[in-house]
Amino acid sequence: MIPSTAVDAVIISCGTELVTGQCVDTNSAWLSAQLTPLGVKVVEHVTVGDNVTHLASAIRRALDGASMVILTGGLGPTLDDVAREAIAAAVGEPLEENSEALAQVRAFFDRWQRPMPESNRRQAMIPRGCEVIANPRGTAPGIRYSRDDRHLYAFPGIPAEMRAMFNAAVLPRLHAVTGGATTESARLLCFGISEAKLGEFLADLMQRGRNPSVGTTASQAVLSVRVLSEGGSAEEARRLLQADVAEVRRRLGTTIFGEGDDTLECVVARLLVEHGETIATAESCTGGLLSKRLTDIPGSSAYFLRGYVTYADAAKVDLLAVPADLVSKHGAVSEHVAGAMALGCQRAAGSDYAISTTGIAGPTGGSPPEKPIGLVYIGLAHSTGVETLRVLCGDHLTRDEIRDRSCKTALNLLRLRLLGVGSAEGR
Amino acid sequence: MIPSTAVDAVIISCGTELVTGQCVDTNSAWLSAQLTPLGVKVVEHVTVGDNVTHLASAIRRALDGASMVILTGGLGPTLDDVAREAIAAAVGEPLEENSEALAQVRAFFDRWQRPMPESNRRQAMIPRGCEVIANPRGTAPGIRYSRDDRHLYAFPGIPAEMRAMFNAAVLPRLHAVTGGATTESARLLCFGISEAKLGEFLADLMQRGRNPSVGTTASQAVLSVRVLSEGGSAEEARRLLQADVAEVRRRLGTTIFGEGDDTLECVVARLLVEHGETIATAESCTGGLLSKRLTDIPGSSAYFLRGYVTYADAAKVDLLAVPADLVSKHGAVSEHVAGAMALGCQRAAGSDYAISTTGIAGPTGGSPPEKPIGLVYIGLAHSTGVETLRVLCGDHLTRDEIRDRSCKTALNLLRLRLLGVGSAEGR
Repeated sequence: MIPSTAVDAVIISCGTELVTGQCVDTNSAWLSAQLTPLGVKVVEHVTVGDNVTHLASAIRRALDGASMVILTGGLGPTLDDVAREAIAAAVGEPLEENSEALAQVRAFFDRWQRPMPESNRRQAMIPRGCEVIANPRGTAPGIRYSRDDRHLYAFPGIPAEMRAMFNAAVLPRLHAVTGGATTESARLLCFGISEAKLGEFLADLMQRGRNPSVGTTASQAVLSVRVLSEGGSAEEARRLLQADVAEVRRRLGTTIFGEGDDTLECVVARLLVEHGETIATAESCTGGLLSKRLTDIPGSSAYFLRGYVTYADAAKVDLLAVPADLVSKHGAVSEHVAGAMALGCQRAAGSDYAISTTGIAGPTGGSPPEKPIGLVYIGLAHSTGVETLRVLCGDHLTRDEIRDRSCKTALNLLRLRLLGVGSAEGR
Repeated sequence: MIPSTAVDAVIISCGTELVTGQCVDTNSAWLSAQLTPLGVKVVEHVTVGDNVTHLASAIRRALDGASMVILTGGLGPTLDDVAREAIAAAVGEPLEENSEALAQVRAFFDRWQRPMPESNRRQAMIPRGCEVIANPRGTAPGIRYSRDDRHLYAFPGIPAEMRAMFNAAVLPRLHAVTGGATTESARLLCFGISEAKLGEFLADLMQRGRNPSVGTTASQAVLSVRVLSEGGSAEEARRLLQADVAEVRRRLGTTIFGEGDDTLECVVARLLVEHGETIATAESCTGGLLSKRLTDIPGSSAYFLRGYVTYADAAKVDLLAVPADLVSKHGAVSEHVAGAMALGCQRAAGSDYAISTTGIAGPTGGSPPEKPIGLVYIGLAHSTGVETLRVLCGDHLTRDEIRDRSCKTALNLLRLRLLGVGSAEGR
């Protein structure tokens, strides 16, 4: 049993591809995001390469310092997968072929009517005394080790497998012991404000040592305000949290676009569905990213009608009826063309709204000072006309970032209109 | 000076948003990817929250174990930014307002003709005896601390700022000392093969302790083969590496689509440019993701003409001239419609190739057994006709993953055709 007192956790990820930078570790963040709301305090993430000695020592240190250790990676079928050996070394037990684990690996191949490669037999080697955790989505069984009130869970590094196994093997135990959770957290998401400005608006709430604690983070132009409350009871923690969240909302108004895992596109989608309205897109510099985001959401066919990626000028003229002389007179990157693209798209698609993007995403193609890299025009056609917005992303951003900012700014423009707020406000 | 003997490094990232899982740490992977090819062995990534005690202890431990420590995050202007204090505590020096740092912060605001918020003054507090590292892209100056042959660099967590500062402050020193680099690495990328199968093809090369070491990793259906060689000289390391890379290439053939940071889209782009040929897209289930990827590459206007996101059936009929009775007879998710979409797109765009996608990305909308979630049809129109491919992604994948796999499979189909290889081969 996991103890009912405060649980602290260390998350270890194993893989040479991680310490050499060939892959980004997303598992640790995902695990933290599951554990934190349940009152588990994740004190550290540690990443080591495929090295038995390094991994075994990281496991030993983690088990000394925290009551819960979650390890991901190193359970694959190939020779560079060292987690089984490292756990055995760290806990001082020999590796044995485990018949339950072997049956699970075999069953996976049987299900797909394929023969089991001999190398997969390695995945059935488990340190003596450990439990096997079933893997519903792959060949690698997980491993659970317990000593007194310390618990180690080892999962494969493939996210879909790890997540399913965590949900099945860890979550039910945690729900059982953290019924009286003492931590509550919220995350409010803002767009169109600087972090320093945000810090000034919230300075008194952000004093260190205060409960709830309030912190801010900037990531890809989205500013998060994180509120974390502690209380003697779940109810007290919730009450403290709600008071702070209400205060932050009062100060920031429509600069806040959402909460938690919200994205601008899912907020816009929600508003479109509520209004029973539809959208179409006409993209140049964003090249499909805007329609991609609008269709990331399940059920997007309710509001998204069609998208045009009019990358070449001829496509703008052919598909959106942008007058050719408008392009030759003002250039494709201009507010005139952005407006004409949005209107042409709205007309062709028969949608309530249409958004257009046209700009210079770089890294080449700018002609400063009039048209530098990072200059983007956004058009929004609506029931009473069209509005355009000039955005200067700044030439210190990459092509990806400029395309990302363009989409976010476009979605935010639409959001503010759907809310009935002038676009100048809340920016 | 960084010593000319083997340099090992620990990378620390600081941020409560990281240990609570609100953000994924990409900085550590980026730093590792810069350091590894220069012969620096990154032994560990460590992540802690915005807590002076935790961070100071992580810094102390890292400085004890490695000759180079890079810290990112915690240098912002708000109260939850604790890196300055933690460094001071770890190295036992007091914090002082540093006039050079203050001038840099002020200069940043002057450049944008804005007044400096008082809170930014905090960013000029630097532990005594440390050097200030200029930040060309933001307000947070970096910090450099040296003791004997140990070096600590602290950078802000915003990736664009951190990268620019690393390139300016760390890279030149490393180039100077690792002229006789002893490590060489390569990464070959495969699509359309399982990791176990790959492990069997390469079993003898993957024996532990072998030099070069060969390892495999699966990420989002792309399989990486990582080769890492060590040698007494850079030349020897390179020779060993090249022999292994050639052997891996010989065994895997066109299953390998690229190297290093290659993506399927950039390989396809390269081939299209070489052939002087053009492409257009007609997307249903992928909703713009395919055109987004094809236009991720600078200069994509050379080969990408236009994209249609025909999400609604009416759009398929209107824009791509897909016969309405084809849709009603076979359904929008069918090889007939995929083929007609690709041909209609090729005709409308006047492109050499056109790719279409139509499928069920989920999480709802499947009708098993004929049309389960994850069923996707891809069409590829080319100079002599159209080919279609039926892909069954598996219902254990998420909507995002199904859309990702659909795009990758479509790009790989095009790649194999551009190479003149039948699509059955190399899969």
